[in-house]
Amino acid sequence: MKRSLFLATAAATATLVAAPAAADEGMWTFDGFPAAKMRADYGWAPDQAWLGKVQNAAVRLTGGCSASFVSAQGLILTNHHCIASCLYDNSTAAMDYLDRGFVAGRRDMELKCPGQQAEVVTSITDVTNDVKGVFGTLTGEALTKARDGKIAAIETAGCTDTATTRCQVVSLFGGGQYKLYKYRKYSDVRLAWAPEDRAATFGGDPDNFNFPRYSMDASFLRAYENGKPVATPNHLKWNPRPPKDGEITFVVGNPGSTSRLFTASQLAFTREVALPITVATTSELRGRLIRAMQESPEKKREGLDTLNGIENSLKVFIGQTKALNDPAFTSKLAAAEADLKARSAGGADPWTTIDSAVSAYRPLYLASRFTTPSGQLYGYARTLVFAAQEREKPNAERLPGYTDSALPLLQKRTLDQRPVYPWLEELRMQWSLSKAREYLGADDPDTQLLLGKASPEGLSQSLVNGTRLADPAVRKALWDGGIKAIRASDDPMIVYALRLADRQRELQRLTDAAYSAPLAIAGSQLADARFAAYGDSVYPDATFTLRISYGKVAGWTERGKQVPFQTTLGGTFDRATGSEPFDAPSAFLARKSQIDPRATYNFVTTNDIIGGNSGSPVIDRAGTVIGAAFDGNIHSLGGTYGYDGTLNRTVAVSTDAVQEALEKIYPAPALVKELAGR
Amino acid sequence: MKRSLFLATAAATATLVAAPAAADEGMWTFDGFPAAKMRADYGWAPDQAWLGKVQNAAVRLTGGCSASFVSAQGLILTNHHCIASCLYDNSTAAMDYLDRGFVAGRRDMELKCPGQQAEVVTSITDVTNDVKGVFGTLTGEALTKARDGKIAAIETAGCTDTATTRCQVVSLFGGGQYKLYKYRKYSDVRLAWAPEDRAATFGGDPDNFNFPRYSMDASFLRAYENGKPVATPNHLKWNPRPPKDGEITFVVGNPGSTSRLFTASQLAFTREVALPITVATTSELRGRLIRAMQESPEKKREGLDTLNGIENSLKVFIGQTKALNDPAFTSKLAAAEADLKARSAGGADPWTTIDSAVSAYRPLYLASRFTTPSGQLYGYARTLVFAAQEREKPNAERLPGYTDSALPLLQKRTLDQRPVYPWLEELRMQWSLSKAREYLGADDPDTQLLLGKASPEGLSQSLVNGTRLADPAVRKALWDGGIKAIRASDDPMIVYALRLADRQRELQRLTDAAYSAPLAIAGSQLADARFAAYGDSVYPDATFTLRISYGKVAGWTERGKQVPFQTTLGGTFDRATGSEPFDAPSAFLARKSQIDPRATYNFVTTNDIIGGNSGSPVIDRAGTVIGAAFDGNIHSLGGTYGYDGTLNRTVAVSTDAVQEALEKIYPAPALVKELAGR
Repeated sequence: MKRSLFLATAAATATLVAAPAAADEGMWTFDGFPAAKMRADYGWAPDQAWLGKVQNAAVRLTGGCSASFVSAQGLILTNHHCIASCLYDNSTAAMDYLDRGFVAGRRDMELKCPGQQAEVVTSITDVTNDVKGVFGTLTGEALTKARDGKIAAIETAGCTDTATTRCQVVSLFGGGQYKLYKYRKYSDVRLAWAPEDRAATFGGDPDNFNFPRYSMDASFLRAYENGKPVATPNHLKWNPRPPKDGEITFVVGNPGSTSRLFTASQLAFTREVALPITVATTSELRGRLIRAMQESPEKKREGLDTLNGIENSLKVFIGQTKALNDPAFTSKLAAAEADLKARSAGGADPWTTIDSAVSAYRPLYLASRFTTPSGQLYGYARTLVFAAQEREKPNAERLPGYTDSALPLLQKRTLDQRPVYPWLEELRMQWSLSKAREYLGADDPDTQLLLGKASPEGLSQSLVNGTRLADPAVRKALWDGGIKAIRASDDPMIVYALRLADRQRELQRLTDAAYSAPLAIAGSQLADARFAAYGDSVYPDATFTLRISYGKVAGWTERGKQVPFQTTLGGTFDRATGSEPFDAPSAFLARKSQIDPRATYNFVTTNDIIGGNSGSPVIDRAGTVIGAAFDGNIHSLGGTYGYDGTLNRTVAVSTDAVQEALEKIYPAPALVKELAGR
Repeated sequence: MKRSLFLATAAATATLVAAPAAADEGMWTFDGFPAAKMRADYGWAPDQAWLGKVQNAAVRLTGGCSASFVSAQGLILTNHHCIASCLYDNSTAAMDYLDRGFVAGRRDMELKCPGQQAEVVTSITDVTNDVKGVFGTLTGEALTKARDGKIAAIETAGCTDTATTRCQVVSLFGGGQYKLYKYRKYSDVRLAWAPEDRAATFGGDPDNFNFPRYSMDASFLRAYENGKPVATPNHLKWNPRPPKDGEITFVVGNPGSTSRLFTASQLAFTREVALPITVATTSELRGRLIRAMQESPEKKREGLDTLNGIENSLKVFIGQTKALNDPAFTSKLAAAEADLKARSAGGADPWTTIDSAVSAYRPLYLASRFTTPSGQLYGYARTLVFAAQEREKPNAERLPGYTDSALPLLQKRTLDQRPVYPWLEELRMQWSLSKAREYLGADDPDTQLLLGKASPEGLSQSLVNGTRLADPAVRKALWDGGIKAIRASDDPMIVYALRLADRQRELQRLTDAAYSAPLAIAGSQLADARFAAYGDSVYPDATFTLRISYGKVAGWTERGKQVPFQTTLGGTFDRATGSEPFDAPSAFLARKSQIDPRATYNFVTTNDIIGGNSGSPVIDRAGTVIGAAFDGNIHSLGGTYGYDGTLNRTVAVSTDAVQEALEKIYPAPALVKELAGR
């Protein structure tokens, strides 16, 4: 479920305050944990020491996932799907790690993961007054500029050692609060263990977001510094035991993005305009890629990581569409909005402001969406161009993604060596350019800017064939050379990215003025209204920052039938058909006689999670790890907009099964010892 | 725009009465033509003689299009896209008629069009009392069975000569009226003239449903009988002149299907459930096919006809989605429903019945939709199986598509020789089976029925490779052999179709009981309410039967800018970029110096049309043909649900341009003479 974080629709990136939490709902900040409510519901709640211990072991992976330290030597538990790109990036035609899985024979054989960085929160500071202090009477672009400048300054001041720390100011409650998150960062992350792909993705897209499930969606990374494993005394205890029905569980991680208190007009825009386009265009991309991957075994391997991401996102988009087209679901959202309006009558009216902002954004939407072509190579070019241009400006005047605090990770991601497959690049560019023409129209000035007299097919081919950006050394020279090197470059992809950059900036400015600036004010007003109405019983929308969810192990009732809370390893063999993607993992077949068929494999809990939470540890009352969350059930797909405790479930792989895998299926005796603390 | 007729969503097949017509709205039956209203608006209206003359020349093409006789020797004007399948079916790798176009050197060189049949209405009889007479107090399946049995009997009695006549009972006003249409049919239809594909599809999918437009979407067929051209004294006069801005125009043809008075619950089901699935799955199919066609020039040729159909339908579905997600559009529909409810207060309440029927249908929808795989070969197998099974029953007990009156065309379509491309068959089956699994779920009994332990890929491959149904002789033997031959067949596709047939029948029965039967009653009540409220100012929803629309030549205002009412042949060269699909047609380039650049090419009128109307003659006040309607503008895509006279436009190719093409670009001197009546 990781990818939804990156492919989220434009409208979904603005976050708003959440409704008062019901049942086990809530992605709570550690300083806002509702201990009294949990104690009332469960007869027990963690104390501050418990929470602090857990927080210190929680890891954010910049690839878009969550994780936790589980040994004193920097060992990190996360999902297989969170490191699939690492296996993919390290694979060649001769050695397909994704297909085979990977067990490091020795620690010095662990595989470097390009673009990956592990981060641990070390402090959170409220900077609301600092940020809001610059608003004054500003509006429009002036307001977003002043805000972003202030944020850049706070971040720079907060983290002077950019080699080991990272600072990020995050807006919570849609602008109600601004907080400075300081992270200890580890930018050398390596892979220690991963099962074969089929074990992690058994059932493939059909079973994704479904349960009962049989997935070994687990892996181990290790954080390094100066070439050595990092010492992590603040790790969680690995507890390889089956979960118990009804027991208390916590999920600690970084939910990526929710929009649970979008106003009616924001929901309408999402349902009426954004989602239909997203589903249609993503479905076509999926189709193009599925077919291309049938053309050869190489393409099948080379396209798999991208396809998995697309299919995962698409399932989310389709689930969101279903939720927003379900009157039973949306009527609850409408009732919550009506309640808040009634409680705050006579105060500020942020709703009308937001309605106007949405209306002002509508005519910008198609151009904003379609003037940035897709593809890794174009992405490199765009980053190199924007980074060079922005670095010419003082820090406080740059676009948010290019401030001093953001540049180190951006640079790493741009320069790390990753494989590039020209056929896949062409396919993605072709698709995005043809969709731009379809939605903007052949005669639109933006289409003319994107295509000139070329066809999507012809232009994609010439750009991909002509560019040298697949070579990290070429990218490094352009990064280091800055704006001079960019201007002097005759690389066709750089020239193309430069050609588009002005219009992309203009659209950003127009969107800031029309939508983001009014939202900054109205969001803050909405948050104040919610605090006044509901006190501290509310939690902020997800922002890919650290949160904790409480709940319990529990199945649910599906059309009158009880869905059990767990599956067993042995169930894999019953479900296997021999046909992809239900073919049993080869190592399962080879070691069938040794595997304990009754070991708990996957299980479900009532914890409230969303994309970005993938890899989060599932923690018991004792503070030990009993699983890794890797998915939600099908009902959780509406979770972007609302949570239903009777149906929404987190799906986790149990430590019981992972231990079995480490001991018998993909044996890693050194890890078994390390996890046992021996 | 033809294909929308065939790919219409399941929910869209039930028709309901239309709202009182405004502006130039209306797809009028010839006996309900609103002469008084037109006279009031335009100062003139046609008399009965005028209408009768036009009706006698109007042709329905069973491929899903409209047309007209334009010479005394059976010459038929229609669109290029209506005969593209004929070019495609006659093409080989060595001779690509679609790409090159076709001009018959002599009459005996005209090309037979597989599956095509031309039909002219000879009488329309009201059989409402006969059909409704059998309803009595019946409900559910008993009601639909009695109704369908009566209809079968009326059709059989109406057309004893099945070689030259065809009888069809059509339900108008959603069950308010039943009419027996009797047709003179011509089942030997041949192609006389067609321009090269690029001339007809210049601008391709990007320009489809857009205007200004530069498309030679015209062609000429000829009806034959006993190997000779049919004498057609009742033809329309060909009038190769440019249209005049503001002049009165009529479009006479067979609009396929509209749902303009769907009740709120039917619209909600379409918007919330049916359309999102249709757009997502069709988009993926489009993507698979686009990519596959890039694999070789053969595949590009072999897939083109299917892709054109898919892209055309998809654009309609996306336009429908946009319309139903536009509050300005849907509020008008809601207001019309409210008005009718108010006027009929105290009478029957069909709305509640329909709400219940829609609710009862919802749980059947996914199974109904996904248990019939896609593909030409599976389609043959399904038809052969159902036809054999149904023919065992008395006529009055058969499923509607398999009655004695329906069998001749079904047989022709099944047995006519058409090319089959195994890669395309596999692609379509794979896609439909994988979508079935996705939407029904891997564990659903229907998924198990469709796939067993096989994968969509594996099953499609073995069925397509194993079947012999591509051979018309094999199909003929199975058709002629009836149920015995079907049961004895070891053809894997026949075996597979047999395996699915029982469940498909069961779903049909369940749908009839849950939805169709209540709709038969409620639709009739709704129609009565409308007649009582609005008298004869209403027209029935489109049913692919003959209608007439009146209007005028007129551009429209698009975001404050006036769109001109016509384009010129010379404009093609200005718009051409040299890149597909905006590469100028080769014959245009070759004959550029001879072509009159000022000749009117395409033009727009306010006539109200929909898919199925393609190929309809555009007729002037004098009753002469001045164009062929081939498209609607982008605003007309909501036309399934409502018509907006300020924005909706019909797009036509002018006789002026076609004459220029016949004389200079794709010269056909014999046709020029024939059209001139010389």
